[in-house]
Amino acid sequence: MTPISRDEACALDDKDPLARHKAQFDLPEGVIYLDGNSLGPPPKAVLARIQSTCEAEWRDGLIKSWNDAGWIDLPKACGAKIARLIGARADDVIVADSVSVNIFKLAAALNTKAPGAIAYHTDEFPTDGYILQGLSNLTSAPLIRLAADDGHDAISSDISVLVKSVVHYKTAAVADIAAWEKAAAEENVAIVWDLSHATGVLDIDMRRAGARYGVGCGYKFLNGGPGAPAFIYVDRQTAAALTQPLSGWMGHAAPFDFAPNYAPAPGVERFACGTPPILSLSALDAALNIFTNIDIAAIEVKAKGLGDLFLARCAAIGLESISPPPRERRGGHLSVRFEHGYEVVQALIAHGVIGDFRQPDLMRFGFSPLFLGYRDVWDATNKLANILETEEWREAKYSARRKVT
Amino acid sequence: MTPISRDEACALDDKDPLARHKAQFDLPEGVIYLDGNSLGPPPKAVLARIQSTCEAEWRDGLIKSWNDAGWIDLPKACGAKIARLIGARADDVIVADSVSVNIFKLAAALNTKAPGAIAYHTDEFPTDGYILQGLSNLTSAPLIRLAADDGHDAISSDISVLVKSVVHYKTAAVADIAAWEKAAAEENVAIVWDLSHATGVLDIDMRRAGARYGVGCGYKFLNGGPGAPAFIYVDRQTAAALTQPLSGWMGHAAPFDFAPNYAPAPGVERFACGTPPILSLSALDAALNIFTNIDIAAIEVKAKGLGDLFLARCAAIGLESISPPPRERRGGHLSVRFEHGYEVVQALIAHGVIGDFRQPDLMRFGFSPLFLGYRDVWDATNKLANILETEEWREAKYSARRKVT
Repeated sequence: MTPISRDEACALDDKDPLARHKAQFDLPEGVIYLDGNSLGPPPKAVLARIQSTCEAEWRDGLIKSWNDAGWIDLPKACGAKIARLIGARADDVIVADSVSVNIFKLAAALNTKAPGAIAYHTDEFPTDGYILQGLSNLTSAPLIRLAADDGHDAISSDISVLVKSVVHYKTAAVADIAAWEKAAAEENVAIVWDLSHATGVLDIDMRRAGARYGVGCGYKFLNGGPGAPAFIYVDRQTAAALTQPLSGWMGHAAPFDFAPNYAPAPGVERFACGTPPILSLSALDAALNIFTNIDIAAIEVKAKGLGDLFLARCAAIGLESISPPPRERRGGHLSVRFEHGYEVVQALIAHGVIGDFRQPDLMRFGFSPLFLGYRDVWDATNKLANILETEEWREAKYSARRKVT
Repeated sequence: MTPISRDEACALDDKDPLARHKAQFDLPEGVIYLDGNSLGPPPKAVLARIQSTCEAEWRDGLIKSWNDAGWIDLPKACGAKIARLIGARADDVIVADSVSVNIFKLAAALNTKAPGAIAYHTDEFPTDGYILQGLSNLTSAPLIRLAADDGHDAISSDISVLVKSVVHYKTAAVADIAAWEKAAAEENVAIVWDLSHATGVLDIDMRRAGARYGVGCGYKFLNGGPGAPAFIYVDRQTAAALTQPLSGWMGHAAPFDFAPNYAPAPGVERFACGTPPILSLSALDAALNIFTNIDIAAIEVKAKGLGDLFLARCAAIGLESISPPPRERRGGHLSVRFEHGYEVVQALIAHGVIGDFRQPDLMRFGFSPLFLGYRDVWDATNKLANILETEEWREAKYSARRKVT
């Protein structure tokens, strides 16, 4: 039930079983952070863990920490924690490299196994398409660019691999994984799911949906830190048939044997490549611990509730949303349209409400349920309404354009 | 002059202008760390920087730190600091991904520009060969495996790209970059130099030697932290002609325009790919600051002096070295042979001397001049002599085999 007053919002917070997790974060005083979908804030335990990784492990343990502190096992350990959130088997996920690099690995491996065209939707997050352009340029595999409204029926037998987002980075529309997989299975097409905007906020069940391949990032709803390493999911039943080209030593069956020829590790581990960045990986590992005792389904329900409240208030202000309405499934963020959205987002930041802006006119806001409540959303929309009503956004200081991430 | 007594070693330390840098490190009490060639220890300033990156930047600055704290500029900033150490122009180096991934990017880009065989020496660090095997498997480019003793005359016109180490990971033999480049130029072969074991300990001048392409890692003599991001060097005069296949958004000319098609950034920046791991990158950036006011030539001289002392003492004990003798140039580490080397290395560790072991019988020791002195080397070789003389290494506790990195 969407609250219709601040009192009702507060009442929802009071009975929210996830509210207690806010204490695990240390957000700046006076800030309502609606950008956890872009960069999650650090849980306190992560800050403590980084210190111990740097001091007890790196400084005091030195090289021995690769074994003694379990650094060498972190890619698998993190993978197992992520697997639980996306409905994969614990050892079918590892953490390695970036989303971009992992898309390359998977698309290349699948395209090697079954040559054909590589397809993607041109409206999805640009790096996915860029990477496929690079792969196509290298191997001469044909590229098929799908339009935003191309649905399952765009899947044809000349496609070898389709890379597709589970949650759209602007609209937060959610793909029906099972329906796409069904259509893909009929044409023998492999789908690589980009779970970046879904993991940690949606209740995803890859196995039940028949999805065998996925990648995703660690720094959004997982709160793993800026540029946290990414993950890669490959169902074990198909991993053995896949040869990925970024065959670095960490994906070798016996990396410390220093054998002359590459021999892939079993399962998804063959998708590891070089030596992983341990400080960033250790932060991600600690951030993932927060999810251990939380039902991901409860997170999705609350994120939806917070987003629905935001949408209801935006409708009252007269802002148009491009995101799925309350009756539909939606990711943990949403976007509303306003011609001077850049300026409004800057003004909001000046008032302690942090969201982001996406070209050409989208104000994007994320609702991480672990540190946000209904009251926060209520107050944020109040500030938004004030900025629009007073036209404060017209002040020159809000219009200086800068890079946004 | 190699000291012949502990007093002489101490005297050398007393007049060593680099000795003052030891105070920038915080090594464990009683430890002589001869493995900085594998994982450099943390400078104190790095530990402070990580804390500030985590707290002032990530926790307090949140998403704004991508701009306000300069996260977005770290790959170039780190690159410029590394460029100075390898004789490259400041903006011809960036930090990104791992050595393995960077080798793939460069070898693929060069092989796309001038198709032909991809060559490497089979005795060099395995991941370099593994990656080229992966690239060859993906693109069908022929692979040429050179033997350890194949010199310049092995370069032939059917080779498109040769990947070669500047410093051999076991022996620390140093390749004559200029001589190889001269032979390569005659046959139109591009050489990708793996600078991993050279950077931060050898006085390298890539431009003067005519070397246009290189990669290297940040966690050895650069002390950038476990699995620190790697670097990539491309001379600006050839970068514009190169299309690398890992064309992620960070290598785009305008990453935040979210344009549908990939358009490479100018110069080496096109070799960036996904979102970089900021915690690890920030550590590397701070670690590189140490080198700002040090002459890299002085570092090489001292590393050589420390290694020469170690070799002289090993010769006295009767240990055979596979590394270049004192009269030759050598990297910052060296290897000596002993049938039960694994056990001896474990025994040394128990006595506070940390080195590492490489199959089948090599004890490898590194001499980072910023935190080691002649006295340390003297004392370490004394312990080594004692362990061999007493045969302490035969104790069962030293023979339990474990993964080593």
